[in-house]
Amino acid sequence: AVHGARKMEDYGRFLALLASTLLVGFVSVILSLVWVFHYREGLSWDGSAAEFNWHPVLIITGFVFIQGVAIIVYRLPWTWKCSKLLMKFIHAGLNTIAMILAIVSMVAVFEFHNAKNIPNMYSLHSWIGLTAVIFYSLQLFLGFAVFLLPFAPVHLRVILMPIHVYSGLTIFATVIATALMGITEKLIFALKNPAYSASPPEATLVNCLGLLLVIFGALILWMASRPHWKRPPAENAKILTPIAATPEGTEVESTMTNSSNADKSDLRINTEAARKQNMKFDEAGQRSTM
Amino acid sequence: AVHGARKMEDYGRFLALLASTLLVGFVSVILSLVWVFHYREGLSWDGSAAEFNWHPVLIITGFVFIQGVAIIVYRLPWTWKCSKLLMKFIHAGLNTIAMILAIVSMVAVFEFHNAKNIPNMYSLHSWIGLTAVIFYSLQLFLGFAVFLLPFAPVHLRVILMPIHVYSGLTIFATVIATALMGITEKLIFALKNPAYSASPPEATLVNCLGLLLVIFGALILWMASRPHWKRPPAENAKILTPIAATPEGTEVESTMTNSSNADKSDLRINTEAARKQNMKFDEAGQRSTM
Repeated sequence: AVHGARKMEDYGRFLALLASTLLVGFVSVILSLVWVFHYREGLSWDGSAAEFNWHPVLIITGFVFIQGVAIIVYRLPWTWKCSKLLMKFIHAGLNTIAMILAIVSMVAVFEFHNAKNIPNMYSLHSWIGLTAVIFYSLQLFLGFAVFLLPFAPVHLRVILMPIHVYSGLTIFATVIATALMGITEKLIFALKNPAYSASPPEATLVNCLGLLLVIFGALILWMASRPHWKRPPAENAKILTPIAATPEGTEVESTMTNSSNADKSDLRINTEAARKQNMKFDEAGQRSTM
Repeated sequence: AVHGARKMEDYGRFLALLASTLLVGFVSVILSLVWVFHYREGLSWDGSAAEFNWHPVLIITGFVFIQGVAIIVYRLPWTWKCSKLLMKFIHAGLNTIAMILAIVSMVAVFEFHNAKNIPNMYSLHSWIGLTAVIFYSLQLFLGFAVFLLPFAPVHLRVILMPIHVYSGLTIFATVIATALMGITEKLIFALKNPAYSASPPEATLVNCLGLLLVIFGALILWMASRPHWKRPPAENAKILTPIAATPEGTEVESTMTNSSNADKSDLRINTEAARKQNMKFDEAGQRSTM
């Protein structure tokens, strides 16, 4: 009963954090729209500043918010009864949407620059941003080929999964850093009389937007790196285990998480080898696509 | 023999990565000095632009490079024979140096702004940067009080260690993001005729510096989140284990890492409870300060 109560409490904590994260992400999207419609030229696709404005809106909506949701989609407890294959499609689908929005948002900037004879790709923002989009696309392509298509051997999946997790989180953090650089650039260029340094309302609003992006990123990284909020291992873990071990006992880890769960204090016999075997098969997503 | 060869290979990989990371960090510091001495006004402490220049130099040296080294100091294999207490002092000491350099670098900016009648704290860079310094100081103070002083009870250390690791890495990533915003600001403000958009040599050099900071951060986060590069558990783990288990068998985890070590495939009996007990005592750094 105490164990169950602890689990419920932990579940409640997860839901509260998830709600806060979605709220912060949602408010960020809203603030980007307020920025663009209330303080700037709105949205259009005509080479004007209103075309440029698609850039912050689509980056914050797609490359930050949707990518963030894609990262934590396996953590949602009510999806644990869904097949892992379905969840992989949702994970890949959300990331594909994010990639398309990021690319469209870049096209908007290039067209705006070309229409106004502003050079492309001179700033650190553009260098790191383009690098992030390229790595993100590679990550998506590799993830699809290795973890969704049924051809990759298990040992390859086992080797690549920690790298997939690490590079996913690192790219996500880099995207947020790039958004902060972009906000800095735009406020300096766009605010004249009063300038950025005079802190007009627009500057305060967009600084707050930047702060929210950092908070959103930090919350996503927290949820993604808590071991006890991971999707439980596959049921076939039981079959693969040579010595009897409950599926719950076969704590499955990925790169950024660990197995130390202070809540689970019940004593049970297990073998390291069985743990590793289960980890390999389940964590590498073998079950669902073979 | 195969096991030993794998360990040596892994050790070689760690050393190669460490050397690359230190090189990238070192080149970043050198580039910040080239920037300041070759392209800008050099260094002095007189309210001029040369006082401002301490800001990028000290941030990159202290808040990026030294903080990065402080994060991975427990990972250096040749320190594993040193007491954990000594390593904690080195970890805390490096972080204290980084904090002092960050504060001095902020004073340089404030004095420069005040001398030139430029407003303080208006930019997103300043908002997030000051927040990062405050959180970093809190983290250092809390870490000292909980993990170095011998007063905190074990259960508190166990609860706070994952938070300490997470917030340390998140603050580090935020500091690098803030540095990128600072570089963006400075290049836009300082480069006139030719402007930043004309890509003069200074712009290219400092963009490369920004890229190196991202690479340095990514390398540090990779090394900090590989479970098999962690400092091995304390020897007293053996004593605390109710059922016989080798110290090697008591894989000890922290927040961002896991216990799945494909290299260790030997079958051994262990209990989850013993593992957790060892983890609690060792990971929370109980041994060395009690």
